[in-house]
Amino acid sequence: MPDGARIAARLDALWEIAHGPGGGADRPAFSPTEAKAMRIVAGWAESAGLEPGLDRHGNLWALPPGWDGPLVTSGSHVDTVPDGGRYDGALGTVLGLELADELRAGTPGGTRPALLICAAEEAPRFGAGTIGSRCLAGTLTEGALDELHDAAGISAAEARADYRALVDLPELEAPLGRLRAHAEVHIAQRRGLGTLGVVERIAAPHRYEIELRGSAGHAGEVSMEDRRDALAAAAEVVLAVEQAARREPAETVATIGTLVVQPGAVSVIPARVCLGLDARAIEAQSLARLDEAVRAAISEIAGRRGVDAHLRVLRTGEPAVLDATLARAALATAERRGIAATATWSGAGHDAQHLAALTPTLLLFVPLRGGESHTPFEAADATDVEQAAVVARDVLAAVSA
Amino acid sequence: MPDGARIAARLDALWEIAHGPGGGADRPAFSPTEAKAMRIVAGWAESAGLEPGLDRHGNLWALPPGWDGPLVTSGSHVDTVPDGGRYDGALGTVLGLELADELRAGTPGGTRPALLICAAEEAPRFGAGTIGSRCLAGTLTEGALDELHDAAGISAAEARADYRALVDLPELEAPLGRLRAHAEVHIAQRRGLGTLGVVERIAAPHRYEIELRGSAGHAGEVSMEDRRDALAAAAEVVLAVEQAARREPAETVATIGTLVVQPGAVSVIPARVCLGLDARAIEAQSLARLDEAVRAAISEIAGRRGVDAHLRVLRTGEPAVLDATLARAALATAERRGIAATATWSGAGHDAQHLAALTPTLLLFVPLRGGESHTPFEAADATDVEQAAVVARDVLAAVSA
Repeated sequence: MPDGARIAARLDALWEIAHGPGGGADRPAFSPTEAKAMRIVAGWAESAGLEPGLDRHGNLWALPPGWDGPLVTSGSHVDTVPDGGRYDGALGTVLGLELADELRAGTPGGTRPALLICAAEEAPRFGAGTIGSRCLAGTLTEGALDELHDAAGISAAEARADYRALVDLPELEAPLGRLRAHAEVHIAQRRGLGTLGVVERIAAPHRYEIELRGSAGHAGEVSMEDRRDALAAAAEVVLAVEQAARREPAETVATIGTLVVQPGAVSVIPARVCLGLDARAIEAQSLARLDEAVRAAISEIAGRRGVDAHLRVLRTGEPAVLDATLARAALATAERRGIAATATWSGAGHDAQHLAALTPTLLLFVPLRGGESHTPFEAADATDVEQAAVVARDVLAAVSA
Repeated sequence: MPDGARIAARLDALWEIAHGPGGGADRPAFSPTEAKAMRIVAGWAESAGLEPGLDRHGNLWALPPGWDGPLVTSGSHVDTVPDGGRYDGALGTVLGLELADELRAGTPGGTRPALLICAAEEAPRFGAGTIGSRCLAGTLTEGALDELHDAAGISAAEARADYRALVDLPELEAPLGRLRAHAEVHIAQRRGLGTLGVVERIAAPHRYEIELRGSAGHAGEVSMEDRRDALAAAAEVVLAVEQAARREPAETVATIGTLVVQPGAVSVIPARVCLGLDARAIEAQSLARLDEAVRAAISEIAGRRGVDAHLRVLRTGEPAVLDATLARAALATAERRGIAATATWSGAGHDAQHLAALTPTLLLFVPLRGGESHTPFEAADATDVEQAAVVARDVLAAVSA
C-alpha cells in the first residue's frame, strides 16, 4: 500500500521550497525553484532504487538500473503557477515515486516501473504550457524555445540551460521505445467531481484574436446614431460568444479573458477593440459549431454596426482521447476495490495528453476538496489520494510487456 | 472688416510652432510650445495697441493702456491636443485680435476691447481641461494644480511655473470687475452644423467609474452555468448604457471609452472589470433620466449574474446656459447682415462656459468643413471665419458699458 505519511511529508517538502506573495507554492517553469524540486525528487527516486537523469528537453526520468526491458512510467510535474497549490503536479510526482517503490521488484505484466516528471508544465512565465512533454512528443520544436520569452526577456531555451546546470544530473536518452504505458494522477481543477475521476478526453483549447475597428470621435460631439463604436460592437460579441457556448454541451466553454480598448480615453469613442477568445470542448463537432456560430455573430454585428471585424485563429487542434483500455481497466479496478470512480474529462491541458502520442496513457483525477485550483487553498483528502495511488498502481502493474 | 489675409497668416504662424508625429499641431498645456504661442500672440496684441500680461493663473490678457473703464473681451486658447488641428483655439485667438484692432477706438456702447487667451484649455496632458478659465472662475482651486500630474509625473503647478518663465510677461491682476461681456469664436467639433452656430447651451460631462466583480476561474474548468464572469456582465452594461442614451434626445450621448479587464489572461475568466462612462446632455433632466436608467440596468445585470457592482460618480454638474441676450443679438446681427446662422449647443467643453460665470458670454461656432475635430485635417472656410468675426464684433460693440 502507498505510504500515506511519506506522501504527506513529501508534499510538505515540495510546498516548502518557495512561496509567492499570496502564500502559495511558487516554482516557475525552468526556474531555480523548479530545479530544486527536481533535485529533491531525484534523491527520493534514488532511495526507491532508481537512477535519475534529465533528457535533452529537461524532463526528469528515474529508471531501474541494469534493466533494458519494457517500462511503465508514472509522474507529473513539479513547477507551479504563481502562488499555486500544494497538490497540482506535486501529487502525481509523489505518487509516481510510491508506485515505483511498490512495483520495484517488477510487475506481473513483465515490465519495470520508472518515474517521468515533465518539465515546465505550467508555463505562464513563457505564455505557454506543457513545454517538456510537448518537446518529448515532438509537437513543440526545440527551435520554438528560443522564441518563447518571459517578462524579463529571457527565452525558454536560456532559462532551461540555467535550470539544467542547477539540477546537475547526467543526461540520458528518453527510453521512448521501451514505454508500455504511462499514468498520471492529478488533482481535479474543477469542483463537482466527487469521486476518483478517470479521464477519457482532454479538451483542445482553441484560441482566437478578434479585432473590431470602428471610428473614434469626441464623446460629446458625435450623436448616438452616427457612431461606429468598436466597444459597443465588442460587447455584443462577448454576449454572442457566451450564448453560443451555452447552446453546446456542458463540457463546452468559451471565455473572453482579454479585451483591450483603443484609444482608451473616457472622452473618446472607442475606435478599436481586440478580444482574446479561448474555446474548449471534448467533441470536435461542438468546437466546430461554436466556431461557426461565433463567426456568424461577428459578421452580423459588424455589418449592422458598420465596423470592420477580423478574426484570427491563433491555436487549434483536436480534443485528445486517452487510451480506452487503460481507462476501462481503471474503472474496473476501482469497482473491484470498492472505490467510487467516474469516467470524466478535462478542460485544462495536461502532460498526459501529449505523452498519449508516445504510449497508452492513463490520467486520474483526485477530487478537489476545498479551495480552488491554481490557488494556495487547493485541498485534497488523504483517502482520495491513496485510492488514486492504488488504482494507478494496479492498472500499470497489469500492463503486459 | 476683419483682415482675411492677416487671419490666415497668423493661423499659419501658430500652426508652424510645433508638429506631432501625425503632422498635426502639437502645443500641450503649460508646455514650451504653448508658451511660445502666447509670446507670439502677445506681440500681435502689442501691434493692435494693447498691453499684454499674464494673470496669476497663466491666462494672457492684453488690455487697452491707460484705460480703467469697462471692457469687452474676446479670445480662445492656443494649446492643442496631441496632433491637433489648425483652427481649434487658434481661430478664436486670432479673431480676438481682429476684433480688438477694429474696435480699438472704443465701442458705441462705451467699452474698450481687450484680449483674453485662456491657458491650458485642452489638457489631456493632465487628465483635465479648461484649467486656466476654471482657475479664473474659481471652480478649480490653485491647490488642485499640485494634484494634477502628467505621464512624466510633472504637476500642472510645476509645468505652469516653467511656462510662466518662458512667456516672460508682466503679471497683472485679472480685471474681472471691469468685464461687460466676453465672446469666443471656435471651430465646431461635430459635422452637420452647416452655418454659423450661436451656442445656447454647453453639455455637462458627467463621469462615472463602474466596477464589476465576479469570480476568476480556469477557462477550461468552470462550466458556463457556474460562471460569474465580470466581462460578460460589463458587456451587458455597455449595451444598456448605449440603449439608455438612445432613448434620450439626440443631444444626449453616453460613451464607455475605457474598459480594463483583470486578471486579463486569455485562459482565465475575468474577475474584475472597470469601465469609464462619460455622459453628456444639454438638459439636466435628460442626464438625470440617463443616470437612473444606467443605475437600474447595472443593478439588474449584477443581481441576475451574481456579480458585485459599484458605481462611483467622478464628476457631475449642470449643463451651462450661455447669456440669452448676447445669443439673441448674435442671431439678429447675422440675419441683418444676411449671414445664415442657427441656434445650437455644444457637447464639448469650452472656456466660454466657465467665463460665463464671470460675465455675459457669447460662443460662436464656425462650421467644420472637412476633416474631424482634434485631428490635423480639421478645416474651415475663410468666408465662414470672416462672418463669425463680423458677428462677434458687432455683438460686443453693442454691449453697453
